[in-house]
Amino acid sequence: MLLQAQVWDYGTTHGLVSPGARLLLAVSGGPDSLCLLDVMHALAGQHGLQLQVAHLDHQLRPESRDEAEFVRAQAAARGLAFHVEAADTLALASSRGLSIEEAARLARYSFLARVARQIGADAIVTAHTSDDQAETVLMHFLRGAGLAGLGGMRPRTDIAAWNLDWQPAPGAGAGPLWLVRPLLSTTRADVEAYCVEHGLAPRRDESNRDPRFLRNRLRHELLPELERYNPRIRSVLARMAEVLAGEHAMLARAIEALWQEMAPPEMQSEAAVVFDRDQWLRLSVPEQRALLRQAVWRLRRSLRDVDFTPLEAAVHFSRRARPGQGCDLVAGLRLSILPDRLQVEDATAPEPEAGEQWPQVQADGSLRGWQLTVEAGQADSLPVAKAAAAGQQQAPGWCVRIDADRLAGPLAVRARRPGERFQPLGLGGRSQKVSDFMINQKLAQPLRRRWPLVVSGEAVVWVAGLRLDERFRVTEATRRVLVLCLRPV
Amino acid sequence: MLLQAQVWDYGTTHGLVSPGARLLLAVSGGPDSLCLLDVMHALAGQHGLQLQVAHLDHQLRPESRDEAEFVRAQAAARGLAFHVEAADTLALASSRGLSIEEAARLARYSFLARVARQIGADAIVTAHTSDDQAETVLMHFLRGAGLAGLGGMRPRTDIAAWNLDWQPAPGAGAGPLWLVRPLLSTTRADVEAYCVEHGLAPRRDESNRDPRFLRNRLRHELLPELERYNPRIRSVLARMAEVLAGEHAMLARAIEALWQEMAPPEMQSEAAVVFDRDQWLRLSVPEQRALLRQAVWRLRRSLRDVDFTPLEAAVHFSRRARPGQGCDLVAGLRLSILPDRLQVEDATAPEPEAGEQWPQVQADGSLRGWQLTVEAGQADSLPVAKAAAAGQQQAPGWCVRIDADRLAGPLAVRARRPGERFQPLGLGGRSQKVSDFMINQKLAQPLRRRWPLVVSGEAVVWVAGLRLDERFRVTEATRRVLVLCLRPV
Repeated sequence: MLLQAQVWDYGTTHGLVSPGARLLLAVSGGPDSLCLLDVMHALAGQHGLQLQVAHLDHQLRPESRDEAEFVRAQAAARGLAFHVEAADTLALASSRGLSIEEAARLARYSFLARVARQIGADAIVTAHTSDDQAETVLMHFLRGAGLAGLGGMRPRTDIAAWNLDWQPAPGAGAGPLWLVRPLLSTTRADVEAYCVEHGLAPRRDESNRDPRFLRNRLRHELLPELERYNPRIRSVLARMAEVLAGEHAMLARAIEALWQEMAPPEMQSEAAVVFDRDQWLRLSVPEQRALLRQAVWRLRRSLRDVDFTPLEAAVHFSRRARPGQGCDLVAGLRLSILPDRLQVEDATAPEPEAGEQWPQVQADGSLRGWQLTVEAGQADSLPVAKAAAAGQQQAPGWCVRIDADRLAGPLAVRARRPGERFQPLGLGGRSQKVSDFMINQKLAQPLRRRWPLVVSGEAVVWVAGLRLDERFRVTEATRRVLVLCLRPV
Repeated sequence: MLLQAQVWDYGTTHGLVSPGARLLLAVSGGPDSLCLLDVMHALAGQHGLQLQVAHLDHQLRPESRDEAEFVRAQAAARGLAFHVEAADTLALASSRGLSIEEAARLARYSFLARVARQIGADAIVTAHTSDDQAETVLMHFLRGAGLAGLGGMRPRTDIAAWNLDWQPAPGAGAGPLWLVRPLLSTTRADVEAYCVEHGLAPRRDESNRDPRFLRNRLRHELLPELERYNPRIRSVLARMAEVLAGEHAMLARAIEALWQEMAPPEMQSEAAVVFDRDQWLRLSVPEQRALLRQAVWRLRRSLRDVDFTPLEAAVHFSRRARPGQGCDLVAGLRLSILPDRLQVEDATAPEPEAGEQWPQVQADGSLRGWQLTVEAGQADSLPVAKAAAAGQQQAPGWCVRIDADRLAGPLAVRARRPGERFQPLGLGGRSQKVSDFMINQKLAQPLRRRWPLVVSGEAVVWVAGLRLDERFRVTEATRRVLVLCLRPV
């Protein structure tokens, strides 16, 4: 098939172009973009496209001004309007702390978006080929990207969602601004052949061979090496990207549906994301991972990558942790386990004072919003046993069974005393300071001092919600059982 | 953390081991499996695991019998039962047309599965490390795998679903037989350090350095090369696999839900998969791709990989094709477009005779099961226009509007005549043989001879469902419109 027909077919199949569209072509003057210009110009006549041309002079090389003039002449030869600007890329890189590549990209796309909006273009058109795609996929692979990154460049992207030095004007007509890539299924070899056949004499940017740039090393060193393992590696990676991008789109919809179910808008705020804890414990690890990632993303929109290790630790923590515990997430966010829910919030946000969220012993000895209940019972009829039988992954942390005959006096609730010790269940009778135990349990610092203890005489029976004392546990010798529950009123 | 504790933690977190489990350890005698044996033996005491050891002598190297004896001694030293067998790997490879690596793998896992069932084991335990995982992911990447392959080895796999020379006994107790990999988050460096610290003297299989095996080249040549681009590439790939495997599990559930909705069991048979055509046309490309892949997989269970190119062509074909058309898929399967549905079936299956599925002119001139209707109408109230306005991607192929004043006589339905010609709409008035047109349209061969034409006098007005004749199209000059519809009764 002729390249023109192939590009039109790909473009229409993927919704990139349609008859009568107004398009802004990004042309550097190299083989890819010169081929794009020539092909699109030929298609414009057949399909009534309205084309204009844009070029950003990055001022990184002495010949860059000549290249801008070359592109101007190419546009003029085809009777197309031409937009050009010069950017101080080095200054932008140093002022923003960006690499030169990043700064060039930011300057270029900000310029293209601005011009596209000015002229009322439907889309910006770039000349990325399937070889560029293979390099992009390889780059993401080497840094360990997820499905989104392995999907590579999409044929069509909403550039208005990018973090550019240009933002869509609020209000009327500011819909998506598409960036489209109609050459994404075309190989670089086809582009070069087209240039020869059509007598095009593109400018060669010598920095494309500079091995200081990662992309150039991938192109000229690593991909030839990989071809020893699979001679078709470039086309294999390009088509892998297409399949994975589709799978990513499907997965994103599934995650969005899960989010709607798990994080209904009425439970959310600007500063925190809240999930129901019972529902959470029924999810799989991948579902929890996806939701935590979404939560981070919604609270920290500017974050580009979410670090794997703390996220993974938080997922496994969330499956085992008990109410009152918490762990750091990423970017200053914290995951807190509450009796009935999980909360992701700013770690620097003030801790809750007391009240509904956490049980705290007040100055008057009351538990504001919380209540301790004591009931007699048998093993089978107890809430803990029932919850376990119902298949919950974790019995509710706020009820506990004790051996009534071990009590030395009536039960009472109070805060800890300085240096107070108890015998945490599971340490084989060894005693530990209550304050150390609370730190080990990762109970949030401001909550520790007034956290409720259930005591009998001088002995701590239960550090509420966290741990029973070894001496009061139910054994085979137990004859009378009491069930202690601490619940919000 | 001590390696033992780390392995137990990973194993319990991923549901690979639990106290009291009965496990069959696969031990080759190399560092990884000797470390596995030692670690699991230490954990067995603490957690009441019941261990036995299995070793397959592949008889590929002269020293293989010595290695079997070495493993026997290692098992005996720890008081564990030992199962050993010798396989003729070369003979298996040549009789099945497998590579030596494939034959060795088939023989080994068939043996392990058989022994595991005999001794009533809950799981087979292998010693794959995170370095093996990185190599596996890289291997899949180089051949362009989808999400399933990029997820690498799973910590836990149902080996009963593999295509082994052993199949689970039908009936009682034949649940899943798990293959578990508790060292999958442990590096090879940690394994080697453990061997040194615990005085283990593993056998070194020299064929692990043989560059004729792809895995060895990846291990000793390509991964060191990739480390120049990312020094942490091995751990990056291992954790990437974990995330992608989770995403694959979520996606698989989403696809299963889509399948349940799109391919309800009551519409399916052993030999064909059927989708509703209207629903199909509302799906996205990735959804259609996933469903076609599922359909192929259900009709061709033994197929390991589905070739990308024909599948991709079929997806795009399905979005544009008209009823009566079809295209080849893979592995002898064919996709057929029917008026109301899509069908994936064996291309060698007999074509439908007529009746409900396809309109065919019978010997008596009737259309058995089909009916032509003719109604007068205006543009706005016509079914074609209405369907288009309702946003359907394609107007129904079985209704068409014609200019009533162009008709030379009453409308009739009949099969084509030898050499008969018409002027297909869109060819600018040029005429074509009806038989050639049908071939171009990929109408299935057995259907062509008796396919219904709507005629007026000697002129073909409409090749039903496929194409209108240019002469009868509705133009701006049309005053009276007729709507022809061909529908199942």
